[in-house]
Amino acid sequence: MVNVAILGYGVVGSGVAEVIKKNSESIRQRAGTEIKVKWILDIRDFPGSPDKDVLTKNADDVFNDSEVSIVVETIGGARIAHEFTKRALMAGKSVVTSNKELVATHGPELLQMAKENGVSYLFEASVGGGIPIIRPLNQCLAANEINGITGILNGTTNYILTQMKKEGKSFEAALKEAQQNGYAEQNPTADVEGHDACRKIAILSSIAYNEFVDCENIYTEGITKITVDDMKYADAIDGVIKLIAVSKKSGGKIFARVSPAIVRNEHPLSNVEDVFNAIVVNGDAVGDAMFYGRGAGKLPTASAVVADVIDIAKHPDSGTAGVWVRTEENNILPIEESTARFLVRVNAKNIADAKKDILSVFGETDFVELHSKANDNEFAFISGKIAESEFAAKLDKLESVPDITVLNRIRIEE
Amino acid sequence: MVNVAILGYGVVGSGVAEVIKKNSESIRQRAGTEIKVKWILDIRDFPGSPDKDVLTKNADDVFNDSEVSIVVETIGGARIAHEFTKRALMAGKSVVTSNKELVATHGPELLQMAKENGVSYLFEASVGGGIPIIRPLNQCLAANEINGITGILNGTTNYILTQMKKEGKSFEAALKEAQQNGYAEQNPTADVEGHDACRKIAILSSIAYNEFVDCENIYTEGITKITVDDMKYADAIDGVIKLIAVSKKSGGKIFARVSPAIVRNEHPLSNVEDVFNAIVVNGDAVGDAMFYGRGAGKLPTASAVVADVIDIAKHPDSGTAGVWVRTEENNILPIEESTARFLVRVNAKNIADAKKDILSVFGETDFVELHSKANDNEFAFISGKIAESEFAAKLDKLESVPDITVLNRIRIEE
Repeated sequence: MVNVAILGYGVVGSGVAEVIKKNSESIRQRAGTEIKVKWILDIRDFPGSPDKDVLTKNADDVFNDSEVSIVVETIGGARIAHEFTKRALMAGKSVVTSNKELVATHGPELLQMAKENGVSYLFEASVGGGIPIIRPLNQCLAANEINGITGILNGTTNYILTQMKKEGKSFEAALKEAQQNGYAEQNPTADVEGHDACRKIAILSSIAYNEFVDCENIYTEGITKITVDDMKYADAIDGVIKLIAVSKKSGGKIFARVSPAIVRNEHPLSNVEDVFNAIVVNGDAVGDAMFYGRGAGKLPTASAVVADVIDIAKHPDSGTAGVWVRTEENNILPIEESTARFLVRVNAKNIADAKKDILSVFGETDFVELHSKANDNEFAFISGKIAESEFAAKLDKLESVPDITVLNRIRIEE
Repeated sequence: MVNVAILGYGVVGSGVAEVIKKNSESIRQRAGTEIKVKWILDIRDFPGSPDKDVLTKNADDVFNDSEVSIVVETIGGARIAHEFTKRALMAGKSVVTSNKELVATHGPELLQMAKENGVSYLFEASVGGGIPIIRPLNQCLAANEINGITGILNGTTNYILTQMKKEGKSFEAALKEAQQNGYAEQNPTADVEGHDACRKIAILSSIAYNEFVDCENIYTEGITKITVDDMKYADAIDGVIKLIAVSKKSGGKIFARVSPAIVRNEHPLSNVEDVFNAIVVNGDAVGDAMFYGRGAGKLPTASAVVADVIDIAKHPDSGTAGVWVRTEENNILPIEESTARFLVRVNAKNIADAKKDILSVFGETDFVELHSKANDNEFAFISGKIAESEFAAKLDKLESVPDITVLNRIRIEE
């Protein structure tokens, strides 16, 4: 029998209790032992809760209970969750979490602490909700050198972009609908500005490249400036705009970025719609492998948490395998030095003149025009694949031409 | 240091040796110990091979070497591979294999033998080539009751069907091209008749439902009768024809089938093309999760084999968790009792009369006609969702009408 304590009885925490109860028999078979929720810690009252017998407001009940060997942290945030995680690990209890903020911020120290105490710190649910991705990266693809990871890691923004594309809604209208449907928070900043996706690609990259990738060093751009017109141009070049989190390792340096990007229709990520997430991992032996599913939600996320709990119950002595070392210098290639191809939308008084200016600034480019458009003075062009700093300088130069207005620029994922 | 012996120096076996050598440093980090290929057993000569120092023709070199703790079986087939696998397990060596035939046929006994000898029998590479799917099912989705699995599990047939659809080639021409490109064997029966996919869905189902699913009991239909005309009708109802392997569990009975089926364009499997494989797993907590990648090939398959080797090297004492129990009675629902919806293509002298006949036999149906078709007497209809036995009886009745010829019938995946 393995006793578990759940910290935080919110959406995910209550889902964990529900899954452990509902599938207790098959979980017992797979874990080789019974798994029981002994405590649920939360400062709030939950009258009539099905778990009222194990609810407590006293943290000592959990931490002083030597029978509790696994602590599930589903509090969120990096303050109380951080304190409680440290306290659990120091008390020789393994910790399982869905808390991407905590893992992305304090992962190296918490993994080290777990290792020193001979316990595990697992976080399958921190990326991709219920999609198995952390364990596949760590174990199933362990024979590979990982070359890169490309993912749609945030369901809220993917839902918004899907609504904009399919229903022609504005960003604001699609966001509002997402909030009404419970797919977006009342304060949507972490999602729509890309911070959530950034934490997740930082976690995946740290595993893939075996060194800590700090999300603070990753260039991050959200989707708030994307318009339905941008999507029409993406469509004209057989692509679709997604919030793409990407990282690559080559020559000892790591490239990482979160930004809206045009994904071509033949790319496996182009069909990932609504709140679904998907992650493409490129390994030197396996080639591309993709993992797809619900990136959030009570039961999918709980499914991933409980899988980690079962793993620890099965291998109580295996401890934490990999620790993430913080490199002394920033190991991320500065965004200015990375290369990209852009689609640039412009408005010009005289299109023929503007095209000449664009050719003289950017060299050879492809022009894109829509068959039916609201504004005759609008078109787009596709830049060559150049350094971001060079692109920025050229765009500045173009914007200095009096009759040309740059409406937007969007990277093309290649 | 962990010493490995590879049995069979063919495509996969040599790939395993290559991956272990090439990524030795990162494998050492992940496994926590060095992994070394000590022996490669093959009766053939390989002059000039990079692995000539470890090649042997004498099986005793492997089985009598107490330093060898892991045996990689990449011989294939169920005869010599079976003997050697038993010999290795009895000698207390863990076995890793890519051999789906052996696992699908003798899995229950070999897993039991591994358990009794305190060693592991792992076979991640037996399904989906390099795609992580066995371990995710066993571990990452361990908190779920698995409701069903739907997959494109054979790359050869998926390549042929993709060529037929995209290039308008006949089955025979597409098969020939697949053979020329090395995607199909000279004797393609196991692939095109669905036997390979059948073994794989049997393995996945055995894991998912925790009881042995014998591929001998699974209804299996290949793609040899599929025509380009069938594909046009699939396209007309916004679908595409794939060789689909499916299994579901409900009410204690397992439904399983391998057959060509029309997959609607919004289904995540519809975009899986060429030699790629993909598997959708539906769990009660996670919902749908999909795994996608190269289902075959030297290095992808080797990647999966080596992942299993690393897992055993990390947890040498964990042994084999699940064994598959053979049920006394056939646990598969007879195909006649399962339900399906069909698209039926017919040729009729008088279309109006034929439609009346169809309505009187099948009740309410949807008719499908192509905008441009070679033959004015041809059309299709979609049956209701009825028991296969009922469908077969109705189809017999329809075929007895003198002026109606049934050209083909294809299941619709729902």
